[in-house]
Amino acid sequence: MEITSAQVKALRDATGAGMMDSKRALQEADGDFEKAKQILRESGKAGISKRAGRTAGEGVVEAYLHTPDPNLPPKLGVMVELDCETDFVAKTDEFRRLARDIAMHVAAADPTYIGRGDVPEDVLERERAIYAAQAEGKPDHIVERIVEGKLKDFYKQVVLLDQPFIRDQDKTIQELLEEYSTKVRENLVLRRFSRFRVGEDV
Amino acid sequence: MEITSAQVKALRDATGAGMMDSKRALQEADGDFEKAKQILRESGKAGISKRAGRTAGEGVVEAYLHTPDPNLPPKLGVMVELDCETDFVAKTDEFRRLARDIAMHVAAADPTYIGRGDVPEDVLERERAIYAAQAEGKPDHIVERIVEGKLKDFYKQVVLLDQPFIRDQDKTIQELLEEYSTKVRENLVLRRFSRFRVGEDV
Repeated sequence: MEITSAQVKALRDATGAGMMDSKRALQEADGDFEKAKQILRESGKAGISKRAGRTAGEGVVEAYLHTPDPNLPPKLGVMVELDCETDFVAKTDEFRRLARDIAMHVAAADPTYIGRGDVPEDVLERERAIYAAQAEGKPDHIVERIVEGKLKDFYKQVVLLDQPFIRDQDKTIQELLEEYSTKVRENLVLRRFSRFRVGEDV
Repeated sequence: MEITSAQVKALRDATGAGMMDSKRALQEADGDFEKAKQILRESGKAGISKRAGRTAGEGVVEAYLHTPDPNLPPKLGVMVELDCETDFVAKTDEFRRLARDIAMHVAAADPTYIGRGDVPEDVLERERAIYAAQAEGKPDHIVERIVEGKLKDFYKQVVLLDQPFIRDQDKTIQELLEEYSTKVRENLVLRRFSRFRVGEDV
């Protein structure tokens, strides 16, 4: 059963659950939206359904300046805004460290977008066309599978939430955030980032 | 003699001179472009004409995180890229301090654009229309003068290079940069900045 990112987004918006959990629930429910909602509620993990609709209005801004040689000035810098629901969480060292870890990750992994939904439609179409051309001659359903597989690789390259966390490649940034969200029982939103490197085209 | 920003820009592009120097030269030359170029060359200040066309390909990235209360996390941050011509200048403490001073200035003064040329045409038109409406009923040449005056105030509000430097209100950020540029005899370019505040609309 193919689950579209639009379905996942709708379920996330309705429940506040994470992307991976929402996708899994939809797959388990064969794409049935109400059934997927029920699954998320019943799984009751970390009270995710209670967090639905609550606003992540607190947070921190953190920066990471990359200085591989301490005698040279930083030529690469990243700034991130990581939001949560309460000041109580925002002011913990652990939360600030999480924000700085993500900034450091962005410096190293150089993502272009935060989530899959941020990739413009024309970029996706261009990628799909390239992958389809590469698989030319194969049966349609094979081509489709190849395109979807390569698109996943593409997301891992350019989408921050899909990238394996640089300090622990076993989880993605999305999973890192979900882990912490479960722990503190608050919605977390990685709102935005900027990455400047001296000499790159602006 | 009214000097347009297009004239100033053309002269700056041709000579590499600063905005204020170019404007003064054009005023002195009654708007005559070649004469203004000659004035800039003859003034010979800081070998500005020699710097024309040289590329600011080195630089630093610096950040400022605003923490008015040390017990609370930073909720406002600014990152800037300040470019110069050589690593020799880029790695000095003074250059890095200049970049951090500008980041701190941006945190406090909240500019929207770097230079006047970055203000979109439709924004300028909207502002002009408002000022003209406010001056309605007055003779045309008075209205024009009022509009230009208010536009200058508007630039001071939203254009970083036109803002009075927060730590020394007697000079603008543009003048601060020109001062340092003259001192180190290199082109300086404030390439970009990002300013994040937790809770603002993204």
